[in-house]
Amino acid sequence: MRNLLLTIAYLGTRFHGFQVQNNAVTVAQVLQDAMESVMGSRDDIKGCSRTDSGVHAEMFCVSVKTECRIPCENLVKALNVKLPPDVAVKSCREVPESFHARYNCRGKRYEYRIHNALNKDPFHYKAVLEHPYPLDVEKLDREAKDFIGEHDFSSFCAAKSSVQDMVREVYDCGLYRQGELVTFYVEGNGFLYNMVRIMVGTLLGIASGTIPESSIPAILAAKNRSAAGATAPAWGLYLTKVFYNETDLIL
Amino acid sequence: MRNLLLTIAYLGTRFHGFQVQNNAVTVAQVLQDAMESVMGSRDDIKGCSRTDSGVHAEMFCVSVKTECRIPCENLVKALNVKLPPDVAVKSCREVPESFHARYNCRGKRYEYRIHNALNKDPFHYKAVLEHPYPLDVEKLDREAKDFIGEHDFSSFCAAKSSVQDMVREVYDCGLYRQGELVTFYVEGNGFLYNMVRIMVGTLLGIASGTIPESSIPAILAAKNRSAAGATAPAWGLYLTKVFYNETDLIL
Repeated sequence: MRNLLLTIAYLGTRFHGFQVQNNAVTVAQVLQDAMESVMGSRDDIKGCSRTDSGVHAEMFCVSVKTECRIPCENLVKALNVKLPPDVAVKSCREVPESFHARYNCRGKRYEYRIHNALNKDPFHYKAVLEHPYPLDVEKLDREAKDFIGEHDFSSFCAAKSSVQDMVREVYDCGLYRQGELVTFYVEGNGFLYNMVRIMVGTLLGIASGTIPESSIPAILAAKNRSAAGATAPAWGLYLTKVFYNETDLIL
Repeated sequence: MRNLLLTIAYLGTRFHGFQVQNNAVTVAQVLQDAMESVMGSRDDIKGCSRTDSGVHAEMFCVSVKTECRIPCENLVKALNVKLPPDVAVKSCREVPESFHARYNCRGKRYEYRIHNALNKDPFHYKAVLEHPYPLDVEKLDREAKDFIGEHDFSSFCAAKSSVQDMVREVYDCGLYRQGELVTFYVEGNGFLYNMVRIMVGTLLGIASGTIPESSIPAILAAKNRSAAGATAPAWGLYLTKVFYNETDLIL
């Protein structure tokens, strides 16, 4: 039995998130279909996180225990042939049997991409948020710094979440502009349901004036979803990095 | 009554081409919906060409005769608010009453975009053709030059076309590479049904060795669809320029 760590990338547009669901196409499902076809058995896969419907991943990690003996390099090629064009396997390595893509995850980086221009670009459809109103990115970057540190993020968690412990640590976050593209980035040890999208919605509320400047500390302190801004749409959000301790990966 | 020339751009992925159809979403339909909402009447629109299902347009021209008095600049803004994010209006100008977006069209440029790399990019989904096999772009560029000039393009027309006159003039065509992206471009006075896609399929056949080198003149001379290569998928194809005589546009 080998335990394999696969890194994949996918365009989330047509998927109902990562996790297998009844009656909806998910990334896990098409990945398992490809694995079954290549590896000869339908092995259980562990994803590093659940991603919402429509969210993209430049990097997503999956661990799978399998009897399959195909060398990792060949597996990458064979899976890419079987996978649909919106899901790609980037790498594969063997890891210790104890490794689990989710439980061993030490942190993640998300980016939220905003096309900030008067004229929308139709070729960005469902891959960025179109936001035609001016954004003072330097100001919003300063506001976003208030998210850094260990906080109770209850105000930034979708009301339907059943998670008990709402404390998470944000290592770094901020915004930068490259031409018409504005990127919000955030790295942390864990993220609550819709947390990044509510952070973005709150920053856009500050940009538009519906939420007062310098109010992120008070919104965090309120521990109440209704204190924060709207949930930004899923299609601007990308999981871009997944962090593990290298010692957990060495055989 | 004004006659307006609108230039638009669209991502073709979810559309069944430009022309209005029953039971299928088309670009013309969503454009007419937006126009009706903004301009107050559902005016007849004339497109510069039919595009197939899934084909994209960086530039597409539409003429419309309307009683609407909204200034062109404001119309562009208002239509973009109403249009879905995968269709954009780029410009609007008033043209002579005799102008017709299709009949006055003097030529068009198409580009066919190929992602030529061993590892597919999931974020290019349905916006380029993934082609993981090596392409000798300089050689294919020399082959493509045989399309230039006035020819009977019967071999490069889908069998189901009902057009009688198959003679078209190609002004220029060729291929170039930018990193992993290979572009086939062709400019001409008119294009038959699937003509560009069959040209690309034939060039890819030459690349793979299933079609002999230097055989494009013979394939043209055969005047038989079965002499040419396969029809390349719609999703790599972009209409990028539409040419008019400036004298036809001046009021």
